[in-house]
Amino acid sequence: MRTLLAVDAGGTSTRAVVVRASGECIGYGTAGSGNPISSGPAYAAGQVRAAVRTALAAASVAHVEGAVVLAMAGSSADADTGWIAPGLASVGAPGRVVVESDLLATFCAGAWEADGYAVVAGTGAAAIRVRAGRQERVGDGLGWLLGDAGSGFWIGRRVVRAVAAELDGRGPTTVLTPALLAALGITDAVRAGDARGRPDALRALVHEIYALRPIELARFAPLVFGAGGDAVAAAIRDEARAALRTALDAVHDDDVHGPLVCGGGVLGSLGAPIGLPGVEEVREVADGAVGAVVLALRDDGVEVDRAVFERVRGSLQALRS
Amino acid sequence: MRTLLAVDAGGTSTRAVVVRASGECIGYGTAGSGNPISSGPAYAAGQVRAAVRTALAAASVAHVEGAVVLAMAGSSADADTGWIAPGLASVGAPGRVVVESDLLATFCAGAWEADGYAVVAGTGAAAIRVRAGRQERVGDGLGWLLGDAGSGFWIGRRVVRAVAAELDGRGPTTVLTPALLAALGITDAVRAGDARGRPDALRALVHEIYALRPIELARFAPLVFGAGGDAVAAAIRDEARAALRTALDAVHDDDVHGPLVCGGGVLGSLGAPIGLPGVEEVREVADGAVGAVVLALRDDGVEVDRAVFERVRGSLQALRS
Repeated sequence: MRTLLAVDAGGTSTRAVVVRASGECIGYGTAGSGNPISSGPAYAAGQVRAAVRTALAAASVAHVEGAVVLAMAGSSADADTGWIAPGLASVGAPGRVVVESDLLATFCAGAWEADGYAVVAGTGAAAIRVRAGRQERVGDGLGWLLGDAGSGFWIGRRVVRAVAAELDGRGPTTVLTPALLAALGITDAVRAGDARGRPDALRALVHEIYALRPIELARFAPLVFGAGGDAVAAAIRDEARAALRTALDAVHDDDVHGPLVCGGGVLGSLGAPIGLPGVEEVREVADGAVGAVVLALRDDGVEVDRAVFERVRGSLQALRS
Repeated sequence: MRTLLAVDAGGTSTRAVVVRASGECIGYGTAGSGNPISSGPAYAAGQVRAAVRTALAAASVAHVEGAVVLAMAGSSADADTGWIAPGLASVGAPGRVVVESDLLATFCAGAWEADGYAVVAGTGAAAIRVRAGRQERVGDGLGWLLGDAGSGFWIGRRVVRAVAAELDGRGPTTVLTPALLAALGITDAVRAGDARGRPDALRALVHEIYALRPIELARFAPLVFGAGGDAVAAAIRDEARAALRTALDAVHDDDVHGPLVCGGGVLGSLGAPIGLPGVEEVREVADGAVGAVVLALRDDGVEVDRAVFERVRGSLQALRS
C-alpha cells in the first residue's frame, strides 16, 4: 500500500502527516511557520523539512510515494515550488509538490462531501465555495491592506484605533483602553497634555504600535472577546461578524448545498455565521491538517468517502493526542 | 537688523526662508522631503541644507543670526536635532535649532492672532487648538495605523478596499473601480474566476497594491474627488469630512475664539469644516512656510502683529511668484 505525505503550512505553525492510501495516518510532525511569503523561503523551507522529518520518523518510514500536497495561504495553481521541492526530496519526499489552497484544506478538514462552503478568520479572513471538490470561488482573503475584513488584524486595528480615539478625546470611553495599555506595559495613564497637547499615555501608545509590524496588531483581537458588555468592543465584534457574513454571501450559489466548515481562532471566538441558504450543517475545525491529507489521498487517486474521511480523522487525532 | 532663518520641512517638500526682523522675507529656497522619520535623517538633512543654501544665496546673505526654527511633523519639544544642527551650521545657520510643530506652523501661516484652531488633511490629518500662540491641544495626527482619520491615506485605503470588494462580489459597483484599475495600468478587467475562483483584475490589484508602501495609498485619494455622484465615493468623502470634524471638535474649547486655519491638499478638495463654535473666520493656506517665519520671528523676540504678519506674507509671496 502506498504511503503519502501531506503538509499544512500555516503562517504560525506547520503540520506534516504521513498517511497510507487506506486513510490511516501513521506519522505526524509540527514546526514553525511554513509560509514562504510571510516568513521568507529559507526559513519556511526549514520548518517544513523539520515537520516532515518528525512525521517520517514517527511513522518509521524512510520515504513516501506520490506527490506531496502542500496546503498554504496565497497559493495559486501555478505557484513556484522551487523553494521547497529540493528540501522535501532531501528528507524522503521526492515526488512532485502540489500546492493547494489552505482554504480548501480547511473545508476538507471538516467535510468529505464534494460541495459546500468554508469560512476562515484567523490573522486573515476569507470564505470559499467548493463544488465537486474544487475551490470554485473565493471571497476576500485579500490581506490586511485590501481586505481580510473580520480577521484578527482587522479587529486588532480597530482596537488600537478605538483606544487612540478615546485617549485624544475623539472617541468614547472603553474598557479596551486599560486592557490595551496593560497589554503593552504602558502604566503611565496620565490624561493631561504634554507640551504639544497630547496625553502621555497616547504618546507611549504611538511609540509601541509603530514599533510593531502592522500584521502584529492581530494579537490585540482577543481583547474584544474579554470586554464583556463594553459598547465599543461589542460594535467591533458585530462588524466583524457582518464582514465575515458578507464574504460568505459573496461566494454563495443557490445550486451548491453542503456543510459550512469554520476555521481560525477568531471565528471560534466570534461564533460561526448562521442561516446561510444551502448550508445543511456547520462544523468547526482547528486547522487544515486533516484536509491536507484528504487532498493528498485524492491527488493519488483514492476516493475519500465518509469511511475513509473518518479513518483519517480518527487516526490523526490519535497521533496528535 | 538681525537676519533669521525658518524652515518648513514637510514629508514631500521643504521650504526655507531668510527673513529680516522687520518681517521682510529676502530669500526663499525649496527642496525635497525634509522629514527625517519618513525619509531617513541623511536624506532629509541633505534636502534641508539644499533649501537653506538656495534661500541664503537668493538673499545674498552668508549667514543668519538667532535660532533656526524648523517646523516638522512628529516634532516634540525635546526632539533630538543632532541629525540637522551640524548641517545647518555648515551652510551658514550656526544657531540653536528650535523644532516646532508643523500644525502650529500651519496655524501661524494663516493667523497672526494668538488664539484659534487649525485643521490639516494631507497625507495625514490632525486638528489643533492654539492659545496664547502655543499648541495647547492636538486631535489625531496619529499616523496611518492609529489615526489620521480623513487623511489622504485614510481615503486612499478606503478606495482600494472598495474596489477590491466590488471585484470579488462583496461590495457595490463603483466608478472608483475602472478609475483605480486605469491608474494602476490594469487593463485585464476580466471578472471570470481563475483556477481558484478570483477575478484576474483582482489578482492584479493585489499584486500592485502590496508592491507599494502602505502610505502610498494616499495617491489614490483624489479618485474620490473626480467620482461625481458615485455613491461609494460620496460616502467616503462624507466619512472623511465627519472624521476631520470629530478631530476639530475634540480640540474645541469654549474659551478659545479665533480663526480656523485649514491646510493640506485633501482638505482643499473636501471643503473646510464649518460651523464650529468660537470660530470667527475660516482661512486656507497652501503650506506652513509663512507660519515657520512667524515662529522664527517670535522666537527672536519680535512681536508679530497684523502689520508684521502681512509684511511676511506679502514679501514671501513676491519671492515665490
